[in-house]
Amino acid sequence: MVWRKRYSPPGTPPGTLRPPEVPQPVRVTAIHYTAETYTEQEVADVDAFLKDVPRQGVLWLNVDGLGDVALLEKLGQHFGLHPLSLEDVLNVPQRPKLEDYEAYQFLVIRMAMVQDMADLSGRTEQVSLFLGPTYVLTIQEHYGDVFEPVRQRLRQARGRIRRSGPDYLAYALLDAAIDGFFPVLEHLSDRLTALEEAVLARPTRETLEEIYAVRRALNGLRRALWPAREAVSAFARSDSPLVSEQTKFFLRDCYDHVLQVLDVLESYRELSAGLMETYLSSQSHHLNEVMKVLTIIATIFIPLTFIAGIYGMNFNPDRSPWNMPELNWYWGYPFSLLLMAAIAAGLVFYFRRRGWL
Amino acid sequence: MVWRKRYSPPGTPPGTLRPPEVPQPVRVTAIHYTAETYTEQEVADVDAFLKDVPRQGVLWLNVDGLGDVALLEKLGQHFGLHPLSLEDVLNVPQRPKLEDYEAYQFLVIRMAMVQDMADLSGRTEQVSLFLGPTYVLTIQEHYGDVFEPVRQRLRQARGRIRRSGPDYLAYALLDAAIDGFFPVLEHLSDRLTALEEAVLARPTRETLEEIYAVRRALNGLRRALWPAREAVSAFARSDSPLVSEQTKFFLRDCYDHVLQVLDVLESYRELSAGLMETYLSSQSHHLNEVMKVLTIIATIFIPLTFIAGIYGMNFNPDRSPWNMPELNWYWGYPFSLLLMAAIAAGLVFYFRRRGWL
Amino acid sequence: MVWRKRYSPPGTPPGTLRPPEVPQPVRVTAIHYTAETYTEQEVADVDAFLKDVPRQGVLWLNVDGLGDVALLEKLGQHFGLHPLSLEDVLNVPQRPKLEDYEAYQFLVIRMAMVQDMADLSGRTEQVSLFLGPTYVLTIQEHYGDVFEPVRQRLRQARGRIRRSGPDYLAYALLDAAIDGFFPVLEHLSDRLTALEEAVLARPTRETLEEIYAVRRALNGLRRALWPAREAVSAFARSDSPLVSEQTKFFLRDCYDHVLQVLDVLESYRELSAGLMETYLSSQSHHLNEVMKVLTIIATIFIPLTFIAGIYGMNFNPDRSPWNMPELNWYWGYPFSLLLMAAIAAGLVFYFRRRGWL
Amino acid sequence: MVWRKRYSPPGTPPGTLRPPEVPQPVRVTAIHYTAETYTEQEVADVDAFLKDVPRQGVLWLNVDGLGDVALLEKLGQHFGLHPLSLEDVLNVPQRPKLEDYEAYQFLVIRMAMVQDMADLSGRTEQVSLFLGPTYVLTIQEHYGDVFEPVRQRLRQARGRIRRSGPDYLAYALLDAAIDGFFPVLEHLSDRLTALEEAVLARPTRETLEEIYAVRRALNGLRRALWPAREAVSAFARSDSPLVSEQTKFFLRDCYDHVLQVLDVLESYRELSAGLMETYLSSQSHHLNEVMKVLTIIATIFIPLTFIAGIYGMNFNPDRSPWNMPELNWYWGYPFSLLLMAAIAAGLVFYFRRRGWL
Amino acid sequence: MVWRKRYSPPGTPPGTLRPPEVPQPVRVTAIHYTAETYTEQEVADVDAFLKDVPRQGVLWLNVDGLGDVALLEKLGQHFGLHPLSLEDVLNVPQRPKLEDYEAYQFLVIRMAMVQDMADLSGRTEQVSLFLGPTYVLTIQEHYGDVFEPVRQRLRQARGRIRRSGPDYLAYALLDAAIDGFFPVLEHLSDRLTALEEAVLARPTRETLEEIYAVRRALNGLRRALWPAREAVSAFARSDSPLVSEQTKFFLRDCYDHVLQVLDVLESYRELSAGLMETYLSSQSHHLNEVMKVLTIIATIFIPLTFIAGIYGMNFNPDRSPWNMPELNWYWGYPFSLLLMAAIAAGLVFYFRRRGWL
Repeated sequence: MVWRKRYSPPGTPPGTLRPPEVPQPVRVTAIHYTAETYTEQEVADVDAFLKDVPRQGVLWLNVDGLGDVALLEKLGQHFGLHPLSLEDVLNVPQRPKLEDYEAYQFLVIRMAMVQDMADLSGRTEQVSLFLGPTYVLTIQEHYGDVFEPVRQRLRQARGRIRRSGPDYLAYALLDAAIDGFFPVLEHLSDRLTALEEAVLARPTRETLEEIYAVRRALNGLRRALWPAREAVSAFARSDSPLVSEQTKFFLRDCYDHVLQVLDVLESYRELSAGLMETYLSSQSHHLNEVMKVLTIIATIFIPLTFIAGIYGMNFNPDRSPWNMPELNWYWGYPFSLLLMAAIAAGLVFYFRRRGWL
Repeated sequence: MVWRKRYSPPGTPPGTLRPPEVPQPVRVTAIHYTAETYTEQEVADVDAFLKDVPRQGVLWLNVDGLGDVALLEKLGQHFGLHPLSLEDVLNVPQRPKLEDYEAYQFLVIRMAMVQDMADLSGRTEQVSLFLGPTYVLTIQEHYGDVFEPVRQRLRQARGRIRRSGPDYLAYALLDAAIDGFFPVLEHLSDRLTALEEAVLARPTRETLEEIYAVRRALNGLRRALWPAREAVSAFARSDSPLVSEQTKFFLRDCYDHVLQVLDVLESYRELSAGLMETYLSSQSHHLNEVMKVLTIIATIFIPLTFIAGIYGMNFNPDRSPWNMPELNWYWGYPFSLLLMAAIAAGLVFYFRRRGWL
Repeated sequence: MVWRKRYSPPGTPPGTLRPPEVPQPVRVTAIHYTAETYTEQEVADVDAFLKDVPRQGVLWLNVDGLGDVALLEKLGQHFGLHPLSLEDVLNVPQRPKLEDYEAYQFLVIRMAMVQDMADLSGRTEQVSLFLGPTYVLTIQEHYGDVFEPVRQRLRQARGRIRRSGPDYLAYALLDAAIDGFFPVLEHLSDRLTALEEAVLARPTRETLEEIYAVRRALNGLRRALWPAREAVSAFARSDSPLVSEQTKFFLRDCYDHVLQVLDVLESYRELSAGLMETYLSSQSHHLNEVMKVLTIIATIFIPLTFIAGIYGMNFNPDRSPWNMPELNWYWGYPFSLLLMAAIAAGLVFYFRRRGWL
Repeated sequence: MVWRKRYSPPGTPPGTLRPPEVPQPVRVTAIHYTAETYTEQEVADVDAFLKDVPRQGVLWLNVDGLGDVALLEKLGQHFGLHPLSLEDVLNVPQRPKLEDYEAYQFLVIRMAMVQDMADLSGRTEQVSLFLGPTYVLTIQEHYGDVFEPVRQRLRQARGRIRRSGPDYLAYALLDAAIDGFFPVLEHLSDRLTALEEAVLARPTRETLEEIYAVRRALNGLRRALWPAREAVSAFARSDSPLVSEQTKFFLRDCYDHVLQVLDVLESYRELSAGLMETYLSSQSHHLNEVMKVLTIIATIFIPLTFIAGIYGMNFNPDRSPWNMPELNWYWGYPFSLLLMAAIAAGLVFYFRRRGWL
Repeated sequence: MVWRKRYSPPGTPPGTLRPPEVPQPVRVTAIHYTAETYTEQEVADVDAFLKDVPRQGVLWLNVDGLGDVALLEKLGQHFGLHPLSLEDVLNVPQRPKLEDYEAYQFLVIRMAMVQDMADLSGRTEQVSLFLGPTYVLTIQEHYGDVFEPVRQRLRQARGRIRRSGPDYLAYALLDAAIDGFFPVLEHLSDRLTALEEAVLARPTRETLEEIYAVRRALNGLRRALWPAREAVSAFARSDSPLVSEQTKFFLRDCYDHVLQVLDVLESYRELSAGLMETYLSSQSHHLNEVMKVLTIIATIFIPLTFIAGIYGMNFNPDRSPWNMPELNWYWGYPFSLLLMAAIAAGLVFYFRRRGWL
């Protein structure tokens, strides 16, 4: 499938929010926590909820689905989000990037899920993350994400997450999204191992097509991660007061993970290129062997058929002692058969010695 | 078609304006607006018009066609344009670029239109944009552009455009030109999807030629956009007083769009390269299959023909009991036919077991 | 032809001037001008001429041919040129470069002429340009250059050239040399268009060789221009008092032209690579088609020949009713012919349906 | 084998230590030295040992095997190591890197051993090195390393090592790890030399597969060394007080060695690519020769068989003097044989002259 | 031959000097000069010589051969050379580099000699150059160098060399080494020209192997020069008091020469790649032509043989007027021959018209 981008019609005023063509169900979940308290709820009426949200603590508002433009506008107004950043939320896919809007940090990343890899599409999902002084707002394309372990850590108050600010939550989500590439890569590695065996055993056209598909998937993942590298690096070097020194330290570790994923990606790309070469060379080797054997068979029979043709000529032996006297020899026929056998054996022997058989 | 550039004869004094070989009709339209007022008119007598233009508000003068050198000189004099920049207007195609002439900003960009893509030429049209303190002057190669939505926004006073200065208008035009690449890419994506299906179904030489054409078109678009990247980036980081901070903010968003278009372009280029590989490999696979089957047919018949040749020999059975006694056997002929059938079946079986059939 | 460089024997003291192996006739022409006056003359006795040259105004001394080392030494002494720069004048080809010797600027560029392109050699000629406070000294490899239009402008006092200093003259010459690449590229574009048609129509080995030649020529031009890019850029950013701000402005325009030439070059290189691919793929396609058709012809006749072989066998029908009774059937021969026709038709039909014919 | 990375499940809190799946035996050895004293011991109870370790001198604690997470946590607590760096110790393979944790320097490098190269896996082992003010802590994946010569130098107090601080020890270990690549490369060079001979003599498919394997091994080594380049460079330019000026001097030498190893690697990669090309071209040359000879044999016999076919026709000579009178000629048969021999000779002569035989 | 590096066993203390495996004869020559005086001698007893060397003037000590470690240690002690730099002298090949040891500059370069190029090995020899305040010490791998012209200039006091310091001598030697690549390139250019002709005339496998060899040689030279580029550039920008401003000026010229050599190298590499392509395409073209002609011959004869087969069938004309009446026609045989001739002519005509012959 050719990769496509949603875009506003050229000339649309910047910051115009356009709903997606296919209406999608939208789900809003809110998690609010301090070091001591933790509440998690599905939000039906966003207005009412936002009015009642406590001042202290960290709010993580997560929106699944891009179908409700009115909701996005409400959120934009409440949190003071720039229309341009909301436009980027809707016009998926965006390149991963970090934008500093002073009042908040706007981060676009992409997450990969194993279940999306079954068809080797290399499909990734955009997550738009807004980091404000007391909140993190994440907006995903579809329901379903890789953030469940972060929710678990929040619920169980594991690690430092409940004692830290929204910047640490943003880091934790970013880290989960990046680390979510590892199982995807592992899945692809299984596919590559299987393909490697298939190529060495009995390769078919399907093998080649699957190698192509894996390659496309790897390209898709690389396209999602390469600009993320810059975004994470910019985040780790951010001079916004919204990001604490300590969180930057963790972000540098996260940057390291991005580099590792890219390294593994690169090595898989090399591997898949190698597989393709092996496939093609083994295909052509196979075909050449077949053609060589067939040609050798033909080459052996052609002189024999020629001899049979000779003795099938109708020269009249009665007219001249020189006209095919063999035909009237006592051992003529056995002699001709022996001659043919000798020629065949000689050719086989010759081909063997030349290493052609 | 080989890509060509108009150029002044080497050694021409810089800033010499040369009319294009083929005289083209020229059309001048003027839009003047303030937050409250809006006038739009076709200008026949530029001199008269420029004398009467109001001091307040923003003037957008648009020239379609490069045929009237005198007109350009008039405009150059009125707006104080440097001859070198006017020369760049005429000597199309120029590389997209931004030049800071203090009194005005000179921007060369290229716009792509879907209707130009039907023949996959990758043709783009040069738009020269002069941004002064109270005016925007755009000069296009031909009639027809992607700026209609901007005109609509001006007429309907949608968004902030009527309340902003000429720098915002310049941004809006630039943005429309860049976003105008998206429908072109969508068109190419449709072509690629169709080609993908054609390659997998029954590829012909026309398929290959169209893949080449799409590739050339993508190359053409990349050539138009790659330097535009730099120009837009320089515009967004401009320190000219003609560009306000807020407009620079929007220009950064526009820069982002350029990067996205380039990303999509790159992925389409990869895709078209992949299609070409698939085409070639499938062609050679097809041919190899044909040759293999044909060779196998020949290889099966060659030994049979040899046997028929044997029993077509004329050794005289009357002379010796060893001379082709089969000819006189009661079951001689059926035996020979059975022998041939057995050999054919054996060969087919052998080829099957070796996986050659 | 393999590209060669003249070089001093390794270990020669730097700045040693070595005459070229083949003595070439040398011609010196001098142009002296102020805004009001203009003299142009061929100089026979350089010593005498240099003594009499007026103090005011700009002197352009042009030397065609490198054969007269004594002359170069005289000029070096008169203008105070460093031996290393004179060595670079003689040891052609030098990489284009700009060297700042404080008392003068030393610029090496290469110029291309259409007449040199007929054999697609990609040959360019070195022009060494010395820019001093009151003079421009140019030294060319051979007679014949692209500077005639500059001379015309000087003679006719067109543009600002007569009112400007030697730096503007240097710019004008540089600009003429760079713009001189455009007609050369146009010539190559004609060749490429012709080759494109040839490749699509009936390509021969000569076509391929000419594509190679065009490619080599493009490589040669690129080799001449790529370093020129840096030299012109350095010239335009020069902080030498010899180059005025205004001239730098024009030089930036000239730099732009270099980029444009390189762009066109790059697109032609892509095009020629594409042509080569098309040629090879069309050659192999052609051959494959031939082989396929031939093989199909053979494959159709082989079973027919086999049947003819069957009925050419000599089994004795008198001995048994099973021995080739067909031979004695009333419709035996027509039946056998029909059988063959049916087999041939069946095979043709089968090959058609498989898309092999 | 596809390259794999151990990773924590996405969303795990940063710094969580996870034991490896397969429990491995862990061995701790401690070396403590001053200029005068030297003790070396295997440590069973790390707690007890760390309590008793003398304040003066340098402690080198080496851990072989990653199986004992509790041990790592104990060491982390004792030396004040950040959980993130301990996580990097466990999640092998990490990219080589240097991280400055102020209280200590954390260096990840990879070492290669000849015994691992027998199967051309390109496998390297991670060594995590912590450099503190009085200690060096190294943690290796498995038992077995390239540090024995460093231990010898310590035992025998050769060179300056016993008189220098832990930074010099860290350098010595790093240097040993880098220089350990040289014998591995030498091993690969032997393999390449053998392959070169094999390719020129009688190449088989195994040859090709081994070339691929060597290439993969070289890629693996490059992946291990390329980021090490940066790490060593950063170490040599470190501004940490833990690294003395003199050690930095030695580290620059070590950096030089990394560059040399990479140079050699690159030249071997070129070589293996060349071998592959030679192999493929020689394979296809061989096959083409075979096919050509076979086709020539067939082509010579086909006209002969045709002539035999002519004289095997049954036209009735009795009916007409024009019907195959040759059959009744006295020299008919010898004439036909001579005709065939002449044709065969003619064809052989023709093929010879065209250079086809 | 696979390229190899001498290296100390991993873990050897840095600065350990190891003699080469094969003892080589070592020769020491000393040249001492001031503007007025000049002495040149072979030195047998280095200790004695160094004691007596005059304070004034410049000493150039040249060591040919690496066999005498004790000598190197003596020199190291006398001139105060760091063991690491002496180690680099012995462990050849080193990457070309410049190292600033304050008391002296240590430069590693490689020199190429035409006599080494006969076997196209791309072999170059390491020259280690130490530049101190009053001396230049050069150590070469073998006897024989490209410095003879420098010695001549010293003997004859040509140019400024005798009036300048050791830095100028170092420059002169470096310049001679770099310029020494030009004759080597010229030699390779001769080989390439010869190969070009061979490829166009009658290419053999030896041609291909020689193209490969030239390519390998060019790669070897590039490997020697690419890092030299950096070293010379660093030398020309050195801020050591040992290098005078004027010498730096000459060094910049030398840097220019390195760039030129690299340019020529690059163009030769392109050329050799082109030759290889031409060879392969011409080989495959040749083979395809052969196969096509052979297949066409076979295809023409196959229908003829079929017709001969028809009239060789034994249907009994006596039984039915439909059974092969042709056999009893008066013009039967001539008719069949004519039929065959017509078919052959038709096929030849058809193949001609299709452009297959």
